[in-house]
Amino acid sequence: MKFKYYDDGALRCQLSGRSFAVTYHIRGTEKEALEIAKNMCVEQTVEFPAEHIGCPAIHDGILGRVACVEDKGNGFQRVDIVYAEETAGDDLPQLLNVVFGNSSLLPGIVLKRISLSDQMREKFPGPRYGVEGLRERLHVYNRPFTFTALKPMGLPPEALAEEAYQCALGGIDLIKDDHGLMDQAFSRYRERVEQAAEAVRRANTETGGHTAYIPNISGSFRETDDRLSLAADCGCGGVLVSPGLVGFDMISYAAEKTKLPVVAHPAFLGGSLDRGKGGIDCACLLGQLPRLAGADILVFPNFGGRFSLTEEQCAGIRDRAAEAPGHAAAPCPAGGMRMEKIRQMVEFYGNDTALLMGGSLFTAPGSLAENCRKFREKLEEMMI
Amino acid sequence: MKFKYYDDGALRCQLSGRSFAVTYHIRGTEKEALEIAKNMCVEQTVEFPAEHIGCPAIHDGILGRVACVEDKGNGFQRVDIVYAEETAGDDLPQLLNVVFGNSSLLPGIVLKRISLSDQMREKFPGPRYGVEGLRERLHVYNRPFTFTALKPMGLPPEALAEEAYQCALGGIDLIKDDHGLMDQAFSRYRERVEQAAEAVRRANTETGGHTAYIPNISGSFRETDDRLSLAADCGCGGVLVSPGLVGFDMISYAAEKTKLPVVAHPAFLGGSLDRGKGGIDCACLLGQLPRLAGADILVFPNFGGRFSLTEEQCAGIRDRAAEAPGHAAAPCPAGGMRMEKIRQMVEFYGNDTALLMGGSLFTAPGSLAENCRKFREKLEEMMI
Repeated sequence: MKFKYYDDGALRCQLSGRSFAVTYHIRGTEKEALEIAKNMCVEQTVEFPAEHIGCPAIHDGILGRVACVEDKGNGFQRVDIVYAEETAGDDLPQLLNVVFGNSSLLPGIVLKRISLSDQMREKFPGPRYGVEGLRERLHVYNRPFTFTALKPMGLPPEALAEEAYQCALGGIDLIKDDHGLMDQAFSRYRERVEQAAEAVRRANTETGGHTAYIPNISGSFRETDDRLSLAADCGCGGVLVSPGLVGFDMISYAAEKTKLPVVAHPAFLGGSLDRGKGGIDCACLLGQLPRLAGADILVFPNFGGRFSLTEEQCAGIRDRAAEAPGHAAAPCPAGGMRMEKIRQMVEFYGNDTALLMGGSLFTAPGSLAENCRKFREKLEEMMI
Repeated sequence: MKFKYYDDGALRCQLSGRSFAVTYHIRGTEKEALEIAKNMCVEQTVEFPAEHIGCPAIHDGILGRVACVEDKGNGFQRVDIVYAEETAGDDLPQLLNVVFGNSSLLPGIVLKRISLSDQMREKFPGPRYGVEGLRERLHVYNRPFTFTALKPMGLPPEALAEEAYQCALGGIDLIKDDHGLMDQAFSRYRERVEQAAEAVRRANTETGGHTAYIPNISGSFRETDDRLSLAADCGCGGVLVSPGLVGFDMISYAAEKTKLPVVAHPAFLGGSLDRGKGGIDCACLLGQLPRLAGADILVFPNFGGRFSLTEEQCAGIRDRAAEAPGHAAAPCPAGGMRMEKIRQMVEFYGNDTALLMGGSLFTAPGSLAENCRKFREKLEEMMI
């Protein structure tokens, strides 16, 4: 023992004894997976040879513990590891670090699920609004939300604002910046947000509608506070965050700073998707994590579109968006959504969904406002 | 055409004509890969059916362009795509979004390399100090840096400060918080940083040394500015950032705010590692990206340790850390480093390396200070 601290048995704080559990799938036999899991219990906490930890309070209180191993029959074992609440501090980056920090670098380990204690849920309450809150804000009851994106990259702010105006006239519920629009020379954030928010306000006044405009704030941290303030000051209806680019905690930060709904976008997250060799399970990565961070709407690539997710993976995201406790988030399938697919989508995802239709609203015959109106009417008809 | 903007040919800004290139490996035949690459040119920029973009300035100026396709002979094709500089705005999240935002969600695509123009390099100059600057700050010439971490999680600040003191007495060059230490009830950031920084200052005064203490700032954005200020005010020698948890831009932000060296840690990034099914190539993920963001020291799991990287992958990180232009970053192999492996590591990684030794300095016979001294002497002997 090098220090009295190592064996005096005294953690400074009394541990609560409360814990949270994390479910992993680990490749190998039961014996191999158990061995890996035991190493993870060390790796994710003390990163110190367990036999050299002379302090019983640390050895017994801080190290993770394997709670169960179950053969999944596909070459993987389900393993639950339980960690002391205190290891995760009070915020999401610290929690995610304990959950999958170093273990993410090991092959054949899939992060499947985080199961928090009730007390931890107070720190991570999830969406501020959720589906119910969005329904009140948008005055949309009994049907999925209609959602579109301003595009293409390259248009000046006044053109994007004109698009927003047309979409709002057509009664769309939600309009976001395309996730590629942030702060570029051809469309600066400030100008775009001021003009698009004003255009939507004008349309809402004309129609009596409640369309929300949702700018993308996923840029440099140097500007984040100013951008969030501007979004709130301009009366935007939410903000768009890509946690792959700016961290999952930005969802929580943006929600708190703006008091607005947050839409999570999966850009740059895809590398972490488990594709059979380890990583983060789809439902966890695109469903649980952004919702845990506080996202009210979870954008993800729909099955059957130009991306590769399966129906099963999309069902996983849908189910994670709504599972108890906490406010349900709205799953938001996107990527190649077309008018003909709406019925199938609503049957699959249910009513508490945001349907994001981009390109096809712009390219179908008819004006943008007309196409937005048709999109909405199509949903209203289905609800009769 | 829905708007005059779509076909008036006028982007608001004159595009510079300058571009940056991104190298991907795409699974499939040449023909298949070319088809995927053409879709990526759209997906990563306008996200809008190319044939509906009536504005030639956008069609010709904003869409990506395939520059070359080359069969790699392993079922993958190398494809370079060239993007207009302006698409990437002025910051790292926007750049990464164009580089691999939506494409990360497609299977069988590996991000290999970003090649910036000279003009873009001015926006992304890389490490502020790099190896040369670190040598001046630490007064270490002609040998690799010795580096250790305060651990285990669970110890109170005074115990961690005592460890820091002993390590500094032993003449270690760099001491970081273990990446699991951030702001927990048993060791609050403020107390730990104040006490560890003071302990290292005291040891430096006694020995005439220049040991640097590097706290971990990878927690909630709510506290980031305060934490960075405290690190600078306490005379810390750098800050530790885990970009997987808080975004790559945090490296750049922390460097600018503190004017201190930044150490990048790979926690939570591992899911994105390409393991043969798509994702981000190891040398890019753990070498190029953190260096591009401005990290002076790049921590990564060493081959032959308890992680899974191969010798070839580690060589890739090493080479990316030093390639021209810009300041070379110090590659920092870690994870199961032992005294017996030092010679092999130096031969493999070279002199401009930081060798991170954790557990084995603590568990070897002898005091922590003695073991740090041996670590350093071992390197000095090699240099004769």
